[in-house]
Amino acid sequence: MEILLTNDDGYQAKGLQTLIKLMRPFGKVTVVAPDGPRSGQSNALTATAPIRLRLLEDTDNLRIFTTNGTPTDCVKLALNEIFTEKKPDLLVSGINHGSNAAINVIYSGTMGAVFEGCVNGILSIGYSLCDHSLDADFSDFEPYITSITRQMLAQGLPYGTCLNVNAPKGTIKGIKTARQCEGHWAKEFDKRTDPHGKPYFWMTGYFHNHEPEATDTDEWALANGYISVVPTKMDMTDYNMLDKLKLEF
Amino acid sequence: MEILLTNDDGYQAKGLQTLIKLMRPFGKVTVVAPDGPRSGQSNALTATAPIRLRLLEDTDNLRIFTTNGTPTDCVKLALNEIFTEKKPDLLVSGINHGSNAAINVIYSGTMGAVFEGCVNGILSIGYSLCDHSLDADFSDFEPYITSITRQMLAQGLPYGTCLNVNAPKGTIKGIKTARQCEGHWAKEFDKRTDPHGKPYFWMTGYFHNHEPEATDTDEWALANGYISVVPTKMDMTDYNMLDKLKLEF
Repeated sequence: MEILLTNDDGYQAKGLQTLIKLMRPFGKVTVVAPDGPRSGQSNALTATAPIRLRLLEDTDNLRIFTTNGTPTDCVKLALNEIFTEKKPDLLVSGINHGSNAAINVIYSGTMGAVFEGCVNGILSIGYSLCDHSLDADFSDFEPYITSITRQMLAQGLPYGTCLNVNAPKGTIKGIKTARQCEGHWAKEFDKRTDPHGKPYFWMTGYFHNHEPEATDTDEWALANGYISVVPTKMDMTDYNMLDKLKLEF
Repeated sequence: MEILLTNDDGYQAKGLQTLIKLMRPFGKVTVVAPDGPRSGQSNALTATAPIRLRLLEDTDNLRIFTTNGTPTDCVKLALNEIFTEKKPDLLVSGINHGSNAAINVIYSGTMGAVFEGCVNGILSIGYSLCDHSLDADFSDFEPYITSITRQMLAQGLPYGTCLNVNAPKGTIKGIKTARQCEGHWAKEFDKRTDPHGKPYFWMTGYFHNHEPEATDTDEWALANGYISVVPTKMDMTDYNMLDKLKLEF
């Protein structure tokens, strides 16, 4: 089996190195990852600058490429320039250092890469741990990643649907399938003044959960010690509104 | 009424200048737009570098700010640093030079900004014309933009749903509400060799429509001379799969 791995924290990140270790027993592993951090890159593309693809390592069933592009660029390059004969059987992105639950899914470079695999008809899974630390401890999550990956290879997913899997920091109680929690980020900037007296902004903020009482969301699962698994789809049409919306001219 | 405008082609783009002209009759207009092109930036964030916000113009009911950030950054800055007392009543993004129909919605900076408004509970609409030309002719689209905006202000949208409106190049026959067409981009890179003998890649490619026969999609509407209006939602959960997915440990 051919497995494509990527991430948004860069090829040297501990999360990706852990994922390589976990995925090698499944088959041939090809990593195409950014040459440095690309968090919060969503599905961003590099369309107005040249992209480079560099082979770093090619050993026993493990190839590692890096690019100067985004996570989405990594997957596009892999599919167009490396897997030219046959698509990979599986794409796994992560393990992200930090949560991609709830609305984070739309900003996440990790999930951007997963969406790109999904749109191309590949079984695609994103794994994230709710710990931003560079030296985050993935050990509790590891057996779950192996197990979820094995089960998904057996079950498959319909075209246009992928998995967004997040794990809480610390001890894990089990797995919950869940829906994407509603919420938004608030108080998002730290305003500072540069040495020349001009203002500038650092992005920061906190997640405001709109439905803290709901027990079927990814945020609830994570807050209660469970891994959240959200089946996530590329068709963003609101079919309910499609029936209701009336526009004239 | 307070209206927030942005785009992903930069504040000088003809599409945004056209949008300013069309939106001024509706109320007070605040533009917060990138200082240059940011196409294909999706919902990308600037989290690891400082962001600047510069007031270019503040005249009769029109303020124009620029940033060095992404379209999503523009909306976040506007909501956190400009509209600190009361949120704008409407966010409009565009008019984009180029299609944001079908799967383009996940790569689009124009729609990234719309999503950001939507997540923050603001009525949010993205307008795009299927013409990448810098000097694209928006005149046929203009009365439709005014009309759709007026109707949406009257109807409103539920939290978490926004509009993705695309217009064909040339004569417009009318408006169709539609669903997001399924498809993907193919043959995406032009591989070249630099003067030092090293390969590099330019992103390019074409859209491959998976359902060319379907008559209820945005791609069909556009190919047949109609404006496509897709109600687009932020909850990407696949509820059908959520019922079916069984994972054990």
